[in-house]
This record gives sequence, structure tokens and C-alpha cells, in this order.
Amino acid sequence: MNKRTIILNALEALIISQKGNTCSVSDIAKQAGIGKGSIYYYFASKEEIFDALVERIYADVIRKCKETVEKSELPATQKIALLLQTYYSSSVEIAVDRYLHEPQNAYVHQKSLAMILKSLTPIVTKIIEQGIQEKIYSCSYPREFSELILSELCFVFDPGIFTWAPEEMKQKLHGLAEFMEKGLSAPQGCFDFLLAPFTQTDG
Amino acid sequence: MNKRTIILNALEALIISQKGNTCSVSDIAKQAGIGKGSIYYYFASKEEIFDALVERIYADVIRKCKETVEKSELPATQKIALLLQTYYSSSVEIAVDRYLHEPQNAYVHQKSLAMILKSLTPIVTKIIEQGIQEKIYSCSYPREFSELILSELCFVFDPGIFTWAPEEMKQKLHGLAEFMEKGLSAPQGCFDFLLAPFTQTDG
Repeated sequence: MNKRTIILNALEALIISQKGNTCSVSDIAKQAGIGKGSIYYYFASKEEIFDALVERIYADVIRKCKETVEKSELPATQKIALLLQTYYSSSVEIAVDRYLHEPQNAYVHQKSLAMILKSLTPIVTKIIEQGIQEKIYSCSYPREFSELILSELCFVFDPGIFTWAPEEMKQKLHGLAEFMEKGLSAPQGCFDFLLAPFTQTDG
Repeated sequence: MNKRTIILNALEALIISQKGNTCSVSDIAKQAGIGKGSIYYYFASKEEIFDALVERIYADVIRKCKETVEKSELPATQKIALLLQTYYSSSVEIAVDRYLHEPQNAYVHQKSLAMILKSLTPIVTKIIEQGIQEKIYSCSYPREFSELILSELCFVFDPGIFTWAPEEMKQKLHGLAEFMEKGLSAPQGCFDFLLAPFTQTDG
């Protein structure tokens, strides 16, 4: 394992054991079993280490999403469902996610949201282009459409930025399903799977 | 003028004279002509003062937008154009805007984006409801539609989070115009005004 990886693992372990807020660069060095000077050779600050850790975590999530979608031979609409399912079921450690949403980590958080949007956009775009080829969608700007949808998922649906009541979330998903359908000129009701979490608890 | 206002004005003046990054609570007190202890009676930190200042600035922008739209008797589509024009022409001091986009102010920035989205949503919703009454739009979820559009404007179009080339911005506005048209079942080309800055320089 290279030193960079060892340092990231050390901070990750400290955050998981609830020491994210209090640990210093010295504590990270101690946990990593290397000298403090060594850390400064790779990173300028604790924030930089955390930034690199978050990037590594989300790069893994995105890679998993990409691979799952590329391996699948489903039609476009089901592929969108598969992508969302893969993304939302990707396990980011709760302690890391909570630490990411601390006010002092807002800059790292903001960078991660931008990175997620930028990385998911080409994946969603490709699925929409597939749907256009399958003649179930019609859309002149598949990339821009993908970005618009993802901007809501990354920003409005981020529980660290907004707090919505379950009823509000349900309305938002209803709206999103309608707009995706209209925006893509897709068959009626084809994005109703977005409401699955609610129809399950409602039933 | 009350003390709270005097304190906000003092920090605003310091930021405008390029001292935002270096000034301390003592400097703000000195600029305000009051004791440092007085400041701590109102605010816990420099960040809290800046947070309150940003809130004041954007509350003014939103109030201006709301009043302009409410006074207008234009049809819905032109009202959307008027709202965007009012919002984007609202003068937030460049130095304050730049300071807001500094990494250490990411939390205040994030809060301001959420506040703008939440405050503009009911204004846009009301215009869309007007358009539905005028029978030029059709949409089952006007509030959720407004939020989706605003999530792109607040997040993807924020120059502090993303950097887009002019050609990319043009594509995004093309996509947004198409999506608004389809999402609202509105007359073809009715949101082409979004492309105005580009058609002007193109011509």
C-alpha cells in the first residue's frame, strides 16, 4: 500500500471512530504509523487529506455506477432505475457522510457535489441517447437534460443543505417523474418507479 | 441605526476595501466605532456577522424581485423574463460576491444558495400558476417545476462552484429553454429569450 493510501485510510478510521472533528494531523500520522513530516510531503492540511478521502470514496461510487450500467443490457428507462438504485445503495460510511456535512467541511462538500454531478452527467447522457435510439425518448439536448435532473438530485435532495418533510419529498418525486416524462417525450407513467419508496409505505 | 445594522455595515465596508480575509472581530468593532464586547453581544464570530450580512443582501435582492413581479401586469412568460432580468441585474458588490466564494466561506455560501432557492420558488410558482390560468402552460406540479429550474440556476450556474465555457453555457440555456417549454407544455420557442445574451453577441 502506498503512503498516500495509508494516510487516507488513517483519517477514514479516525472519522469512523468519531474522532473526525477533534483529530489533528499528528493524530492522523500516529494512526497511520508514519511521521508527521511525511504527511506534509503529501498534503498541506487535514482538510486536504479529507478532500482526497472524499474524492476517493465518491470515485468508487461513480465507478460502481458506471460499471453496473455498462454491463446491463436493459432498455433505457430501466437503466435509469438501475443507476439510481446503484447510486443510492452505495454505502458511504454514515460517520464519513455526517462529518462531510459539518459546517467546517462545506467547501469539501461543495466540491464533492460538483464532482458527482460532473461524473454522473455522461453516464445519464448515454442512457438518454440509448432511449432516443430505442425511439422511446425524444430530446435535443440529452447532456443538458441530464445535468438539469442531476442538479436537483445533487443540490435540492442533499439532506445536508435542505430538510424536507416526507410529504414534500413525495411531491418533488411526483414532479420529477412528470418533468422527466414530458422533457423526454417519454411514455406516460414510465418514471413512476421514482415513487417506489412512497408507494411501498403507502400501500 | 441600530447596533446590529452598524456592525453589518462595518464588515461590508471592510470587505469592499479588500480587508475581508484579514480583518478580525476587533477590526470590525473599530470600523463600527463600538466596543468588541458589544459585537459579541450580537454575534458569536466573524463568520456569523458575514452570514447575517449575506442574508441581508440577498433578502434585499429577493424583495426587489418580488415587488417587481407583483407590480407587473405582464403575461406569465414575460414575467419570467422580467424576474430573471431583475435578479441578474441586482447589484451585489463584486468584492462581497468574491469574498462569499472564498473556500472558508463555503458554509455561508451554501446557506445563501439554499435561501435563494427557497425564496424564489414561491415567486416562480405564482407566475407558472398565472400561465396555467392564462391557458398557455399546463403543469401538474408548478412548485416542484419551479424548484427544479431554480436548482440549475442556483447550483449549476454558480460561477463559484462550476466553471463553464461560453459555448457550454449556451448549450445549457438551449437545453433549459427546451425543457421549460416541454415541461410546461408551452408554445414553441417561448423561452428563447433565455438565449438573448448569446444571440446578441452572435449577431
